[in-house]
Amino acid sequence: MVRENEIRKNEVAIEPPPTTDAGLVFIGRISTPWTSRLQTPRQGRHDGPICRIEIFEPWALALRGVEALEQLEILYWLDRSRGDLVLQSPASNGTVHGTFSLRSPVRPNPIGTSIVKLEAIEGAMLLVRGLDCLDGTPLIDIKPDRTLFKPIAPPQPGDSQTGDEGTAHYCQKV
Amino acid sequence: MVRENEIRKNEVAIEPPPTTDAGLVFIGRISTPWTSRLQTPRQGRHDGPICRIEIFEPWALALRGVEALEQLEILYWLDRSRGDLVLQSPASNGTVHGTFSLRSPVRPNPIGTSIVKLEAIEGAMLLVRGLDCLDGTPLIDIKPDRTLFKPIAPPQPGDSQTGDEGTAHYCQKV
Repeated sequence: MVRENEIRKNEVAIEPPPTTDAGLVFIGRISTPWTSRLQTPRQGRHDGPICRIEIFEPWALALRGVEALEQLEILYWLDRSRGDLVLQSPASNGTVHGTFSLRSPVRPNPIGTSIVKLEAIEGAMLLVRGLDCLDGTPLIDIKPDRTLFKPIAPPQPGDSQTGDEGTAHYCQKV
Repeated sequence: MVRENEIRKNEVAIEPPPTTDAGLVFIGRISTPWTSRLQTPRQGRHDGPICRIEIFEPWALALRGVEALEQLEILYWLDRSRGDLVLQSPASNGTVHGTFSLRSPVRPNPIGTSIVKLEAIEGAMLLVRGLDCLDGTPLIDIKPDRTLFKPIAPPQPGDSQTGDEGTAHYCQKV
């Protein structure tokens, strides 16, 4: 099917090694309005439709305190994406870009990340806006948005460490 | 050892299911100045020390185009963290917080994310500032910073879909 998992002109696929370096557990499931990749947003919008994130047991207890957070970082497993392209042609015009310079779902480890707006919590279900993934996508993690979160743990030496302490000689802007 | 992998007062650990839902491949390795968790920053700083991200073969080609990006999102595997705590006490004072309301390295799937400043590229090595992980941490993914990246692929219907199209009745701020 076009724009699903085909290889386009000039794209480069590699033979990926086995994905056995670490294992993931799916901790929930995401419900969105999108059942086809051809309809899914390229990037979520904070005025986009409500999506639901269901948290499985035994992790529901880990939601405690989430209600105070306005924005969350969501990690999810792009379970319907191939993972072997190192050069990709998003515009299908033969021009290729390295996978690491794209936010394409096609990646060596197909993990998507979004910043969402938290609208409501209903039991072990979060209602959020800002996702961009297919209906049924497995959930991997939920974190507070880094820009709005202040660590609760006491400070430690690395917190205030800047680049002026011996390693700055590596700095040479490309 | 204190503040490594002990359980503190009121913390709750669960018996985690096997991590066999999906497999990861380590695509590189991160070098940082920090060899102990007790020295590592709570959160990276963009004026912090240079860290090096080495990309393994066969993914070096996927770096093409990265040199044009000022900030990157880095995903890494927190390989020295336990993953079974659902309630955690970051301040060690008995007050607990749900794991999803913390950016602690202790998570069901121990994946860290940082936004880094790209300083230089030397072959298959990136020099960046802003990381907060231990020396030797395995790399999982590199993406353009979402706030600075405009999708290259042509628009599709979901891109402009807002919450006014049938799902807005779910909206009820907690």
